[in-house]
Amino acid sequence: MALIVKKFGGSSVGSIEKIQNVAKRILNEKKPDDQIVMVVSAMGDTTDDLIALAKGIDSDPYRYDREMDMLLATGEQVSIALLTMAFRALGQKAISLTGPLAGMKTNSVHTKGKIVDIQPQRVLDELKEGNIVVVAGFQGADALGDPVTLGRGGSDTSAVALAGALKADSCEIFTDVDGVYSADPRIEPDARRMKEITYDEMLEMARLGAGVMQPRSVEMGKHFNIPIHVRSTFTNKPGTMIRGEYTMEEKDFVIRGVAHDAKVTKLAVLGVPNTPGIAHSIFSALAEAHVDVDMIVQSIRNIEKNITDMVFTIASDDLPRAREILDRVANELNAVAVLVEEDVAKVSIVGAGMLGSPGIAARMFGALGSAGVNIDVISTSEISISCLIKSADMQKAINAIHAEFFPKK
Amino acid sequence: MALIVKKFGGSSVGSIEKIQNVAKRILNEKKPDDQIVMVVSAMGDTTDDLIALAKGIDSDPYRYDREMDMLLATGEQVSIALLTMAFRALGQKAISLTGPLAGMKTNSVHTKGKIVDIQPQRVLDELKEGNIVVVAGFQGADALGDPVTLGRGGSDTSAVALAGALKADSCEIFTDVDGVYSADPRIEPDARRMKEITYDEMLEMARLGAGVMQPRSVEMGKHFNIPIHVRSTFTNKPGTMIRGEYTMEEKDFVIRGVAHDAKVTKLAVLGVPNTPGIAHSIFSALAEAHVDVDMIVQSIRNIEKNITDMVFTIASDDLPRAREILDRVANELNAVAVLVEEDVAKVSIVGAGMLGSPGIAARMFGALGSAGVNIDVISTSEISISCLIKSADMQKAINAIHAEFFPKK
Repeated sequence: MALIVKKFGGSSVGSIEKIQNVAKRILNEKKPDDQIVMVVSAMGDTTDDLIALAKGIDSDPYRYDREMDMLLATGEQVSIALLTMAFRALGQKAISLTGPLAGMKTNSVHTKGKIVDIQPQRVLDELKEGNIVVVAGFQGADALGDPVTLGRGGSDTSAVALAGALKADSCEIFTDVDGVYSADPRIEPDARRMKEITYDEMLEMARLGAGVMQPRSVEMGKHFNIPIHVRSTFTNKPGTMIRGEYTMEEKDFVIRGVAHDAKVTKLAVLGVPNTPGIAHSIFSALAEAHVDVDMIVQSIRNIEKNITDMVFTIASDDLPRAREILDRVANELNAVAVLVEEDVAKVSIVGAGMLGSPGIAARMFGALGSAGVNIDVISTSEISISCLIKSADMQKAINAIHAEFFPKK
Repeated sequence: MALIVKKFGGSSVGSIEKIQNVAKRILNEKKPDDQIVMVVSAMGDTTDDLIALAKGIDSDPYRYDREMDMLLATGEQVSIALLTMAFRALGQKAISLTGPLAGMKTNSVHTKGKIVDIQPQRVLDELKEGNIVVVAGFQGADALGDPVTLGRGGSDTSAVALAGALKADSCEIFTDVDGVYSADPRIEPDARRMKEITYDEMLEMARLGAGVMQPRSVEMGKHFNIPIHVRSTFTNKPGTMIRGEYTMEEKDFVIRGVAHDAKVTKLAVLGVPNTPGIAHSIFSALAEAHVDVDMIVQSIRNIEKNITDMVFTIASDDLPRAREILDRVANELNAVAVLVEEDVAKVSIVGAGMLGSPGIAARMFGALGSAGVNIDVISTSEISISCLIKSADMQKAINAIHAEFFPKK
């Protein structure tokens, strides 16, 4: 007997037919003793349709964040009711539970809520009754009982957290790709599906641009030590297991994947005095505005005048906010100029194995050099190495690095 | 300072523009100290759209009644969020509450729930904060916290019951007519709007076919002694007040209205033995099948053989079920035949005043006779007199009776 949480996203339940297909598939796969908890998102475009309604009233409806949650929480409530009906129409006992009914307790940060506790007794009771329990992802209730949505990636987080609270055997995340690949298959035709990857590697891949899983849910999996099984909604391929350690001898590759991020902007604050506290004045101002700063390089511009350049990268989405702050700070610091470079991209390699394998960085730089790709900035973590390059070189860079570390058999 | 509950139905909030108009109107009418609780239904066709989705999965989705409630409860949740946003966009503090959050406790009879208790503390708290409180009608939660909808006329019932629990000064029901009329204005061009009508008269009018208010909510108003103010969504006309007693000297008319019901079917079980228990065998079988029987006449067919005819009326919608039962019972009783007459209608006069005014019945029959309308069956209650006539005579009958009791000034 296994207790399995299975999460299906909005595109997997985007129509009545797709909902019926999900129900059929689950019943085909289910072993007689399995206990199944489904976590589902709103159907296809429902959330966008609801937002469009709200925008009819106010161009910035998120100003009314509590009311947005009241509105958006209906999306998953519709899909859980319909999926439950689909199970029952196939003769399977099933029951739907909203996030609040499933015991998902959140803080009161509307539209970006965080799970603070899960009291899943009702879910356990309904499983005991022989039901497949269909839970609304992406939502919970705060201390007042008001609906709160979890923000981006919230349904994955709901699923993994619920799996943790239920002490489930695994949490399966069904998605439109069939697992975690060694690189984005749309860019690297030879990308390979990984059978296993560790939480830390997956987190690093996500941080560095891989879109399969939101970091939040992987962190939740790590916290509860729940294996997360990334699977395809549309095929029966085995997918990728994210867990604490490898169970298989899949150590052929010292790196686990090549990640990339095309939405990066490089900023440079040129000619600031190289005195203590300068880095702090720049980066604390950005932090206050919730702008995350990535690869940082400080280089000496003029050693006699003790003047330095600060170079770093941010997510391109943050550029307008960052620009405003930097112009102000640069003025205060008497900086020479603020430069913005938008045609850059970051390519990275990730792998827990590289810690014990010297020379990995050299192989990466060598592959880029042979492909004629110039490296602008380099940064490293314990389990990753990232290079900032020109956007135009991104495809070439990914292909070269992938060929170096994942040679064709 | 007054605490007023205002209920708007689905057609009043059927689009973003209509929702905005409702918000504007409420703020225009609101006195600075007024405390306002809005009770709203789902937007326009939302409920039908949701039912259509469910029918995509099962042609009879009401088999999954709990899941239908889960599905349908989202309709009002969308409209309360949007109406609240509309208030806030106009600068008015407002907050939405689902039925469960407003403390509407129901039994667990899904899709036809009944309110068993109201714990409106949250509503009172939010009013104290200066909010207009926008509550989802038609819904509550059972002891498990599961959503339960209240069935037909449920939003009116929610509004009146909540007004009762809040000890509100009045409950205003906004609808597409501007009050209760002395007859259906579509049939009787001289119909007059009543300034006041008692709960009992309104209940009798509703029972006898007047469609303005569901009897359930009028009963709730009577129970809590909350004045129900029937008003138009689209005009500022004063409407009709439903309350326990008249406050004005509006005693010009001994009857309050002419009601009619075109969806009536007359049934006759001919030639049954006139022995004790016969009526019971026929009517208990119908009652078990939830067929309500109205005007009943027992007449002697053959006094020597002690054989009788049972004649009565039912709602036309119940005919298929009633027919099946009567064929079986008639067979068991050795009845001669079961006759069905569908081209009949019922016209009635209602008025608490008729108790103390003899001759009212004679005036009604006289008006019908002068108009050449033949009366088939007559029945009376304390505050009403009803006549069964041919459907073809209905318009003529209503006009004649109305002219008798409400002469043109």
